Amino acid sequence: MSEILSDSWRYCVGTGRLNLALRADYLESLAMMQKDIGFRYVRGHGLLSDDMGVYRQSVVDSKAHVRYSFTYVDQVFDRFLELGIRPFVELGFMPTALASGPETVFWWKGNITPPRDWGEWAALVSAVVRHLVDRYGIEEVRTWPIEVWNEPNLPQFWKNADQKAYFRLYETSARAVKDVDAQLQVGGPSLSPGADEWWEPFAEFVARRDVPVDFVSRHAYASGPAQHVPFGTYQTLASPQSLLDQFAAPRKYLASTALASLPVHITEFNSSYRPDNAIHDTAYQAAYLAPVLVGGADLVDSYSYWTFCDVFEEENVPTSVFHGGFGLLTHRQIPKPAYHLYTFMARMGSQVLARGDDHLVCEDDNGRVTVLAWQPVGGTDAPDAEDRHSVKLSVPMSGPRAFVRRERVNEHDGNAFAAWRELGRPRSPDTKTFDLLRDCARPVASHQSLSIVDGMVALDLVLARHEVTFVEVLPVHTEEHAGLDDRRLLGVSDDRLVARW
Amino acid sequence: MSEILSDSWRYCVGTGRLNLALRADYLESLAMMQKDIGFRYVRGHGLLSDDMGVYRQSVVDSKAHVRYSFTYVDQVFDRFLELGIRPFVELGFMPTALASGPETVFWWKGNITPPRDWGEWAALVSAVVRHLVDRYGIEEVRTWPIEVWNEPNLPQFWKNADQKAYFRLYETSARAVKDVDAQLQVGGPSLSPGADEWWEPFAEFVARRDVPVDFVSRHAYASGPAQHVPFGTYQTLASPQSLLDQFAAPRKYLASTALASLPVHITEFNSSYRPDNAIHDTAYQAAYLAPVLVGGADLVDSYSYWTFCDVFEEENVPTSVFHGGFGLLTHRQIPKPAYHLYTFMARMGSQVLARGDDHLVCEDDNGRVTVLAWQPVGGTDAPDAEDRHSVKLSVPMSGPRAFVRRERVNEHDGNAFAAWRELGRPRSPDTKTFDLLRDCARPVASHQSLSIVDGMVALDLVLARHEVTFVEVLPVHTEEHAGLDDRRLLGVSDDRLVARW
Amino acid sequence: MSEILSDSWRYCVGTGRLNLALRADYLESLAMMQKDIGFRYVRGHGLLSDDMGVYRQSVVDSKAHVRYSFTYVDQVFDRFLELGIRPFVELGFMPTALASGPETVFWWKGNITPPRDWGEWAALVSAVVRHLVDRYGIEEVRTWPIEVWNEPNLPQFWKNADQKAYFRLYETSARAVKDVDAQLQVGGPSLSPGADEWWEPFAEFVARRDVPVDFVSRHAYASGPAQHVPFGTYQTLASPQSLLDQFAAPRKYLASTALASLPVHITEFNSSYRPDNAIHDTAYQAAYLAPVLVGGADLVDSYSYWTFCDVFEEENVPTSVFHGGFGLLTHRQIPKPAYHLYTFMARMGSQVLARGDDHLVCEDDNGRVTVLAWQPVGGTDAPDAEDRHSVKLSVPMSGPRAFVRRERVNEHDGNAFAAWRELGRPRSPDTKTFDLLRDCARPVASHQSLSIVDGMVALDLVLARHEVTFVEVLPVHTEEHAGLDDRRLLGVSDDRLVARW
Amino acid sequence: MSEILSDSWRYCVGTGRLNLALRADYLESLAMMQKDIGFRYVRGHGLLSDDMGVYRQSVVDSKAHVRYSFTYVDQVFDRFLELGIRPFVELGFMPTALASGPETVFWWKGNITPPRDWGEWAALVSAVVRHLVDRYGIEEVRTWPIEVWNEPNLPQFWKNADQKAYFRLYETSARAVKDVDAQLQVGGPSLSPGADEWWEPFAEFVARRDVPVDFVSRHAYASGPAQHVPFGTYQTLASPQSLLDQFAAPRKYLASTALASLPVHITEFNSSYRPDNAIHDTAYQAAYLAPVLVGGADLVDSYSYWTFCDVFEEENVPTSVFHGGFGLLTHRQIPKPAYHLYTFMARMGSQVLARGDDHLVCEDDNGRVTVLAWQPVGGTDAPDAEDRHSVKLSVPMSGPRAFVRRERVNEHDGNAFAAWRELGRPRSPDTKTFDLLRDCARPVASHQSLSIVDGMVALDLVLARHEVTFVEVLPVHTEEHAGLDDRRLLGVSDDRLVARW
Repeated sequence: MSEILSDSWRYCVGTGRLNLALRADYLESLAMMQKDIGFRYVRGHGLLSDDMGVYRQSVVDSKAHVRYSFTYVDQVFDRFLELGIRPFVELGFMPTALASGPETVFWWKGNITPPRDWGEWAALVSAVVRHLVDRYGIEEVRTWPIEVWNEPNLPQFWKNADQKAYFRLYETSARAVKDVDAQLQVGGPSLSPGADEWWEPFAEFVARRDVPVDFVSRHAYASGPAQHVPFGTYQTLASPQSLLDQFAAPRKYLASTALASLPVHITEFNSSYRPDNAIHDTAYQAAYLAPVLVGGADLVDSYSYWTFCDVFEEENVPTSVFHGGFGLLTHRQIPKPAYHLYTFMARMGSQVLARGDDHLVCEDDNGRVTVLAWQPVGGTDAPDAEDRHSVKLSVPMSGPRAFVRRERVNEHDGNAFAAWRELGRPRSPDTKTFDLLRDCARPVASHQSLSIVDGMVALDLVLARHEVTFVEVLPVHTEEHAGLDDRRLLGVSDDRLVARW
Repeated sequence: MSEILSDSWRYCVGTGRLNLALRADYLESLAMMQKDIGFRYVRGHGLLSDDMGVYRQSVVDSKAHVRYSFTYVDQVFDRFLELGIRPFVELGFMPTALASGPETVFWWKGNITPPRDWGEWAALVSAVVRHLVDRYGIEEVRTWPIEVWNEPNLPQFWKNADQKAYFRLYETSARAVKDVDAQLQVGGPSLSPGADEWWEPFAEFVARRDVPVDFVSRHAYASGPAQHVPFGTYQTLASPQSLLDQFAAPRKYLASTALASLPVHITEFNSSYRPDNAIHDTAYQAAYLAPVLVGGADLVDSYSYWTFCDVFEEENVPTSVFHGGFGLLTHRQIPKPAYHLYTFMARMGSQVLARGDDHLVCEDDNGRVTVLAWQPVGGTDAPDAEDRHSVKLSVPMSGPRAFVRRERVNEHDGNAFAAWRELGRPRSPDTKTFDLLRDCARPVASHQSLSIVDGMVALDLVLARHEVTFVEVLPVHTEEHAGLDDRRLLGVSDDRLVARW
Repeated sequence: MSEILSDSWRYCVGTGRLNLALRADYLESLAMMQKDIGFRYVRGHGLLSDDMGVYRQSVVDSKAHVRYSFTYVDQVFDRFLELGIRPFVELGFMPTALASGPETVFWWKGNITPPRDWGEWAALVSAVVRHLVDRYGIEEVRTWPIEVWNEPNLPQFWKNADQKAYFRLYETSARAVKDVDAQLQVGGPSLSPGADEWWEPFAEFVARRDVPVDFVSRHAYASGPAQHVPFGTYQTLASPQSLLDQFAAPRKYLASTALASLPVHITEFNSSYRPDNAIHDTAYQAAYLAPVLVGGADLVDSYSYWTFCDVFEEENVPTSVFHGGFGLLTHRQIPKPAYHLYTFMARMGSQVLARGDDHLVCEDDNGRVTVLAWQPVGGTDAPDAEDRHSVKLSVPMSGPRAFVRRERVNEHDGNAFAAWRELGRPRSPDTKTFDLLRDCARPVASHQSLSIVDGMVALDLVLARHEVTFVEVLPVHTEEHAGLDDRRLLGVSDDRLVARW
Repeated sequence: MSEILSDSWRYCVGTGRLNLALRADYLESLAMMQKDIGFRYVRGHGLLSDDMGVYRQSVVDSKAHVRYSFTYVDQVFDRFLELGIRPFVELGFMPTALASGPETVFWWKGNITPPRDWGEWAALVSAVVRHLVDRYGIEEVRTWPIEVWNEPNLPQFWKNADQKAYFRLYETSARAVKDVDAQLQVGGPSLSPGADEWWEPFAEFVARRDVPVDFVSRHAYASGPAQHVPFGTYQTLASPQSLLDQFAAPRKYLASTALASLPVHITEFNSSYRPDNAIHDTAYQAAYLAPVLVGGADLVDSYSYWTFCDVFEEENVPTSVFHGGFGLLTHRQIPKPAYHLYTFMARMGSQVLARGDDHLVCEDDNGRVTVLAWQPVGGTDAPDAEDRHSVKLSVPMSGPRAFVRRERVNEHDGNAFAAWRELGRPRSPDTKTFDLLRDCARPVASHQSLSIVDGMVALDLVLARHEVTFVEVLPVHTEEHAGLDDRRLLGVSDDRLVARW
C-alpha cells in the first residue's frame, strides 16, 4: 500500500529582503522557479525596514505626521500572488523612526532594536495586517502564517538577545494580529540553531499569559565557523542527518508542553549559513540535500530553503556570478545543481512506492513511475564519495515494454559551475556567456526502451560523483502502422537496419 | 521650404538613481516609454554609489583587497541597450570606501565628498570606462557622453561647493577617460540653475591646463521655494520662457571663450525641482512644457526631462500613487499628461511646416500632416488660462477629402490625475483601480472627413482648459466598390441613411 | 429583490468551419475575444469534412486501408481548451470517401449526402467520440453538447431535405454516441428558420423508437431575400422581436410532447444570414441585437451568435477588410460595434436591478452598478431612429459621491466601419491603417463625479444615433491627504483653481 | 588564408502551398526556425490558386465583375516580413476562373492548365506585382526573385508538359513583371530532375525573342520510384554526390549560351521527393545532407530545402506526427535531425579554416572556432555505415587552455524519431508526449577544458552511427579570484577535491 508523497518540501522557500522583490532579476527567477517547482509560500526579512517605506513620518513646521504606506508592500505581494506564491509573513525589522536604538544587522542595515513605543508598534502591526486583509480578503490572509521577528536569540538580530524583550514583542504582535481577526495564524520564536534552551521558557510564557500561538518555528544549518578568504568563505559541514536532527528538535523539546501538537516550520535551512560559501554552487550541495528533502516531511510541517535566488545583499552586492550565494538560481537565472534537485522533486509522482538511503520511488495513478536517486555524501567528517555509485531498483509497470528517460546532474552534467570554472571563472559574463552557462546547466538526458518482465522493469543506475539523477518510466501503448517496416528505410529490405536504427 | 524637426527633445531623459534600474516597475515603464516615445539616452545619479557595488573592498586578516565589480552595472546597461536606450554616463557619487568624509545627499545617502585618494579615483574611473569598452565595444561607448559629477556648485551635492576641488575632480576624471580612448566624449560641469558665474572660471581652467572637454552641461528649473505640507510641497512657477532662457545661458556665457562652439546639453529640466509637487501630475504641466519642447532645439543640443518615471527615492519612498513625482509615468505605468505631450511629439512628421505660440505643424514625405496645439500658460504670475482656447490652421493636402484624427489631453480627457481625484485619491489602489486609471489616462480621440479646398484643409481646433491636442491629417485614396450603396443597408433605398450613417 | 443575470448570452458562439481554427488570425481573434468576453462553447461546421482529415483511406495494391486520424482535430480542440472555450460538437458534413453522392454546399464544398454505408458512419461517430474521451477525459467530454448535422430541413444542407433520412442519421449517430458513454449529451435537429413543421415528427420519432435526445436546437435569422451587388448583398430586416419569437418557437411546438422540458439551444442566430451583408459591420447591428441579448435568456438556454470572426469562407475568400462578414471581429482583429455590445455584457454585474426597452441595470456584491443602454431600432419596417435618444435612470449607491465612467459606441464613436468609410474604404489596408482602424474602434470614454442623493445617483444619458452605451458607477471611499489643497497648485492660493481643475 | 563561409545554404527554404502560411502551427514553426537558423527567402506553390482568393469574379445579373484581391496574400507576406524572411515568388498555379481546363495536381487541386485568356493572365501578373510594389515598396520587391511556374516539364504540373505553351507563359509573365519595373528579377524554368534537355531550347527561346531572364532554376532529388505501403512509401536513394551533380547541371548545359553567367537557384532539393517517406525523419537524413549543405555553395547561388515544416498537404492531411514529411520540423515543432544540421550550420563561424569529406571547420574574428563533423553515408548502393566514425582535427587557439562544447545528433541523441518509436509510435500524441518528444529532440551536449599545445587544440571526435556533431572551441581568459581554492570546499584542505571536482 502506498503512502502519499508529502508537499512539505515545497511548502515554503526563503528570499533576500523583501525590497529585493521589486527587482526584475528577482521576479524573473521567481517566475521561472514557480513554473518549474511551484513553492507555496515565500519568507524573507525586512517587511517593516525603511526601504519598504511602511512606517513614514513627514515633519512640517516641527510637527510629525505619521502615515502607513503600502506602495512597495503592495507591489511585492501583488507580484507574489500573480506568480502563484503566498507570503509567509515575517514581522520585522524595526523602522528607524520607531526604533529605540541605532543597532543594525547586515550590509543593508536592518534595525534590530525594540520599539521605542510599544503602543506604536502594536498600531503598526495592526495597520499592516488590516491593510492586507482589506486588499487581499480575509479568506486569503488567513492562509498566510505570520512569524514574529527573526532569530531573537542572537544578539546580531535582536539587541542583547534579550529574551524578556522578545517575549513582550511576541505578545504585543500576536495580540495585535488576533485583534484584526482571530483566525489569522501567528507564531514564533524563529530560533537560530543552538538555542533549544529557549523552547521551555517560550512555552511557559505563552501558556501562562494565554498568548496566541498557532505554530512554532526555528532554523537549521550544518556548517562550522567561517574561514574567510577575499570575497568568500570556506566552512566545515556536519552530515545531512544533523539537519534532520535540528528539524526534530522543536517537537522533542516541546513534547510535554502545551505547544506539543502545534505545526512546526523550519523557516530557514541550508548546508552553510554564509551567502559567500561556494559549496552552494556545487553538485555536492544537491547530493547533500537530497536525503534532507526526502526525509524532512517525517519530522516537520515545512522546511524552507534559504534562499531561492542569489539576489541577496546581506554581505553587500555580490562581485561574481558564482560567489557562493544561497540561491538555487544565480543572478540572471543559471540553475545550480540544487535547483535541479527541487525540479526533480516537483516531477515525482503522487504516491511513494519505496524510499532508501539513496533513492525515492513514486508512482502516479496513470502508471507513470519516477525515481530520484543520489550518491550519499556525509559532510566534512565522512569519507569522500567514490567516483561511481550504483543503485539497482525494480519498479512495477504493465505491458511488454517501458519507455525510460533519465536526467543527470553531477560534477559534469547539468553543472554550470563546472563549466564556469572551465571558462576561466568570469565574474561578470557577457550575455552570450550567460546563455552558454544556462545551456551547460541543463541536465543531461537519455532515453531507452526496456523490457517488462513479470510486471517489473529493472533499473540499473550507475551514478557519477555527487550525482542526483531523475528517472521517468512510462507505460507504452503501441499503435498500429500497417505496412511500416524500418528495414526498408533505404528502399531495400535490410535486416541490419532494424537491429541498429 | 521646410525645416527638419530636430530630435533634441528626445536626445536624453532623466532617471532616478541607477540602482532603481534593477527594478521591474522601472523597466516596464522604460520599455513602454521606448515603444511610445523612443529616447536616445538616459541619465541618472549613483553609478558609483555603494548600492551599485562597483568599488568593493574585502578585508581578510586586516588586509583590504580591492575589487572593481560590475554585477549591477552590467545588469543595468545591458537592459538599457536591450530597450534601445544608451547611458548618458554621470560619474558619481563617491563610494564610501573611497570618500574623504561622511556627508551625503538624499534619503538614499549618496556620498558627496571628494575622494580620499585622487589616484584611486582615477583608477576607478579608468577601470569603469575600460570595462564598458571591453563589454560593449569601443564604437558603441564612444557614442556615450560622460559627465563629471552633478551640480558641484551646490553644497548639497559637492562638499562646500568647492570649485577648486571640482576642477580637480573634472581634470582627473576627464584625463582618466581620455587615457582609455581619446575619442570618448567627456564633459561638465553639470551646473544647477543660478550658477552662471561658474562658466568663466571653468572655461579658463580647462583652457589653461588643456583639459579635455567635449560638451558642457547645466540644468534648468522654474519653481520657487518649497512650501511644505505633509508628504508634499507647493511652489510658485516662473514662465515657460524662463526655462528657455536658462537653456540659452551656457552659449551666452561661453560666447567669447574657447568652449563657445561645444555642444550644450541641458542634462536636467522640469517645471519644479521637487519630487513631491503635484504640478507634475497635471494637464497644466503638459501645456506648460509644450512650448519648451518645441522651442528648446533652437538653443541647445539636448534637454533631458527629469525624470521619466516615478520610481525615484530622493525624498524617500513615495506614499501615494499620485504624489507629485517627476515621472512621466507613475508607479505601475499610468501615463500623466506630460507623457502624452512626449508621445505626441514622437508622432509628429519629419519636416516643420509652421510654428507658433500655440502650435507646431509638420509633414511627412507621404503627405501626412500632423499638428501639435496647446493652450499657452504662463506660470504663477501670468493670468489664469481661459476655459477655451481656439487654434485655426490651414494645412496642405492633395485630393478631394482628408481623414482627420484628433487626440486630446486636458483637465478631463486623458487625465488619470483628474479621475484619481474623483475616485477619492486612493494612495495605494488595487489592481482593478490601476487598470481603471490607465483607461482614464488614454487621450480622448475623434475622427472625421474634411473637404480639401484649393489644396488646403481648414482645421478649427477649440481646446479645453490646459489642453494639449494632437491632430493627424491623412490623404484619402478612395477604392472602388462597384454596387455599394449605403442607402440600401436596410434593404430598401433610403436617402436618410446615406446622409446620416 | 434582484435576479441573477443569466449567462445564456455567452453560452455559445459560432465559427467558420473547423479547419479555419488552424489559422493564426482566427486564433488571435479567439484569444482576444475570450479575454474580453469569455464564451463557454464554440460551434462550427465541418468536423468530419475532408479538410479535417478524419476519415482517411490509403489504397495500396487496390486495397483500401481505413484510418481515423486526428492530427487536425486535436490541434483545434487542444487550442480551444487552452483558450478556455469548449467545443459544441456538430457531427457533419460527410467525408467524401463515405458519401453516397457528390452534392456539396458552400465554396469549400462540404458534402451534404447521407453515408453510403450506415454502419461505417456509426463506426466513424463512435471512433471520433471515443478518441475525444481518451484524449480529454470522460468528465470533460460529458460537458460537450453533440449536435447531429446542420439544418437538414434545407436541401442545400441535406440532400433533398429528406426528413426520413435525417431521422435515420439522427438515430444512428445518437446511439453511437451513447454507446461510448450514456452520459454524453446528444441532440438535434438543428433546424433552420421556417421549419417548425419538423418539431412534431421529430418528437414523435424519437419517442416512438426511444432514441436518445438530451437537447433540441434550431437557428434564428431576421433578414429577407438577398439583393445581390458585386461582392455583397442587401436585405430587409424584420424587428429584433422576430428573433426572440424564433427563440420561443421550439418550446411552443414541443409543449405537449415528451421533449417539452429539454434544454433548447439556438445554435445560430444573427440579423442577416448572409456573410456579405454590410449591416453586420454597423452600429445599427449592435443597437439591433442589444434587446435580443438581454431578452433571450427568458426563452432559451443559449443563443449562439453566428459568428465570432470574419475568418469565414462559405462564400469564398473575402475581398475587403469590411465586407459584411458575420464576425464580431474583422480579419486582423478590428472590433465591430457588436463586439463591444458583447464586451459590455461581459462587464455587467451579477444581479439584475432593472430591465427595460432601452436598458439593463445590474449590480455586484461590492456595490458597483453597471448600465447597458441602447437606442431601440426596429428593422426595415420600423420608423428610422432619431438622432438622439434619452435614457434617464436612478441607481442605488452609498456614500456622498459616486465615480461614473461611460463608454459609447455609435455611428461615430467606437466605430471602425465609419472611419474606414472616411478613409476611402481601402480593401486591404496596410499595417499602419489596420492600427489606425483598431484605434478608431475603441469606444469613446468619459468620467465624472456625481452626487448621491438619498442613496441614489441620477443618470441622464443622451445616446447618439444607433448608440449602445455602457456605464459603470462606483462607490467612492475618500482617503485622507492632510494639507493637500489644489488651490495651491501654482504656489499661491487661488480659488479659481479648485473650482475648475 | 581563409575563405568566407557562403550563405547560399540558407538563401532559401521551401514551404507547403502559401495558403498554409495562414496557419498558426506553420507560423510558430517559421518563427522558431528564423530564430534558430535564419533563412533569407521562402518559396512555395499556390500564390494564384483559388484558396488564396486573388483572382475573383462576382456574377450579378449574369455579369461577371473581376476583382484582384489580396486579403490573404497580404496576411502571408506581412507575416513573412515580420519574421525576417522574404518571398521567393512563384507565379502559379492557375485560378480556376482563368483556367483553360479542369486538370489539377495534388490533393489540394492546383489547376495546371494554361490560361484561357493570355491577356488576362498578363493583367493578373501585372496586378499582383504592382500591388506588392505599392504595399512593400519598390526597393524591397526588387530583392524578391520571381519564378515562372513549377516543373513545367512534368505533365502533372503543366498540361501535357507542353514546352511551347510554357515558353509563352514565361514570356508573357516576364514581360508583365518587367513592365511594372525593369529592375524586378524574373526567372525560370523551374525544371524537375531529368529534364536537362529543356535548357538549350529555353536559352535559345529567350535569346531569340529577347525575353527578360535574371536567373535560372531547377530542382534536385535523389530517390527512386515510390514503393507504397499504407500511408507511406519507401524508396531507394542515390548518393549525396548525385544531388551535387544535379546542382551543377544548369551551369554545364548553359555554358555556351547567353544565360551562362546568370545566377542558378536550386529552388527545391531533398533526398526523397515524397512527403510520406520516413527517411526524412531520421538521423540518416542529417548525415546524408551534411556534405550537400557544405558543398553546394561551390556550384550554385542557392539550394532550397523542400520544405521547412510538415504543415504540408500535397498527399492529403498527414495521419501521424511522424509520417515521413519533408519538414525540418513536425507539426507542433518537434525538430528532426536535419533541423539540427541547419542550426549547426547557422552557428558556424564566418571563415572557413578547413573542409573535408566528414568535416567543416570555421572561425570567427574573436578567435572562436567551430566544427561540423558527420559520418559519411552513401545512399542505398553504398556499404552501410559503421557503428562508429572517428574524426581527428587540430584547430588553432591562443592561450593555455580552451573551453570545448559539443552537441550530438545521431540514432539516439537529439533524435525524437527514435524516442517516438520507443514510445510505441503514437500517431496523435497528447500535449505531454509532445513536450517529451521535444525534450528528446534536443542534441546531447557535453563540455570540457582542453590544453592548447603550440597554439593548437587537438579534437578527437568519435561519432556514433549516422551522427552529425557540432563543436565550439572558445578561448579562455582566466579571471583572478584571490584566495579561492577548490580544495577547501569542505572546510579542510583536501587534494582529492581539486583533482576530481
